[in-house]
Amino acid sequence: MLETALYLIPVPLSDGDIHDVLPGRNIAIVSGIRHYIVENVRSARRFLKKCDSSIDIDSLTFSTLNRHTRPEEVSEMLAPLRQGEPMGVISEAGCPAIADPGADVVAVAQREGHKVIPLVGPSSIIMSLMASGFNGQSFAFVGYLPIEPGERQRKLRSMEQSIGTLDQTQIFIETPYRNNKLLAELIKSLPRRLRLCVASNITSDNESIITRTIEQWGRSKYDYDKVPTIFLLYK
Amino acid sequence: MLETALYLIPVPLSDGDIHDVLPGRNIAIVSGIRHYIVENVRSARRFLKKCDSSIDIDSLTFSTLNRHTRPEEVSEMLAPLRQGEPMGVISEAGCPAIADPGADVVAVAQREGHKVIPLVGPSSIIMSLMASGFNGQSFAFVGYLPIEPGERQRKLRSMEQSIGTLDQTQIFIETPYRNNKLLAELIKSLPRRLRLCVASNITSDNESIITRTIEQWGRSKYDYDKVPTIFLLYK
Repeated sequence: MLETALYLIPVPLSDGDIHDVLPGRNIAIVSGIRHYIVENVRSARRFLKKCDSSIDIDSLTFSTLNRHTRPEEVSEMLAPLRQGEPMGVISEAGCPAIADPGADVVAVAQREGHKVIPLVGPSSIIMSLMASGFNGQSFAFVGYLPIEPGERQRKLRSMEQSIGTLDQTQIFIETPYRNNKLLAELIKSLPRRLRLCVASNITSDNESIITRTIEQWGRSKYDYDKVPTIFLLYK
Repeated sequence: MLETALYLIPVPLSDGDIHDVLPGRNIAIVSGIRHYIVENVRSARRFLKKCDSSIDIDSLTFSTLNRHTRPEEVSEMLAPLRQGEPMGVISEAGCPAIADPGADVVAVAQREGHKVIPLVGPSSIIMSLMASGFNGQSFAFVGYLPIEPGERQRKLRSMEQSIGTLDQTQIFIETPYRNNKLLAELIKSLPRRLRLCVASNITSDNESIITRTIEQWGRSKYDYDKVPTIFLLYK
């Protein structure tokens, strides 16, 4: 029997065998949970079926949590947990509540004093940082850069400053179809000796994690169009 | 046969079955590597033996990487990789190159254009952030706070400011025997409505991840003395 808790269940970042990226314990826990809070019901069902093909998916309950969910709905979703049932949170890809809406429901569970148990799984932020060669003792994930050109340049300047004064690796993402445009902008507007790591398709057969100076990137051929990619900047 | 690459191999954060926190692929990869760069030879050998009891430990080579290692030594350690052999990096606990010296050797491998492959494993930073209920779209890991009281207070003020202006979760650690002292200081010097998550013994049977306001922590009993703990702060 599973402990009554809100389990945070990571999902693979790429296709392939889930046992390559998830510990066996995760699969065992998934098999014991009947109530889920998910970002997308279809992909969550597909993931659960992959974990355990004997799961009776139609006996499970799913609540959908996304950025349109109202706060009072978030709280209602935890009803089974309040009645002593273990619950699971599943996001579209990667670790729930990191760069996705799961954090709201975790905050409610914490406020009510429920146990919250995070499981091990792939995080593109941590995996790219590990492989970048950059400072892992001080780093910031800043999400998406601003779209408006002036704001975007100001953000880049403030990131440069954080690298210099705080010795802090800067980690950010872009909408995949804009990756090449972002990379061209970085090459154009950043100091030539800064190092940029571009990490794409993490955990897939096409994984590529490459660190070069801005100057070297300027002389390189690249194509990250529509490919899941994360960017890291350091001196 | 393994691909020629520098594999970054996470290690459990706590005792217990390694299959609870590491995917099966990690074990298979470990079994194919003969040359390691490690933070501590004894604990690396113990870990490898746990992964695969049939490994002939005495046939493996280990180079020790710690904060006393000189840059030219770091480069020499990669000799097997330059000759086409896969190599592994193993730190004391958790993910190599995050909050430990592994980043230096990864930087050399990247500079020379070698493939670097990070494996999935437990990260106390990501797991505590998932379970905190705090903002996972913007966060900073700042490592240890300064020891000198004036500097420490200035750091706390700047973290408060980053929470306010950047909406950025602040994550930090302390030497375990000073955890209680740090928590008392935080209670005394931070605004009462800020939320503090204290995450200890992550992945162990005694795991505890609790988010409370500073005011609530002030009214709580706690004891984190000598226990591996990570602290997160958010509004």
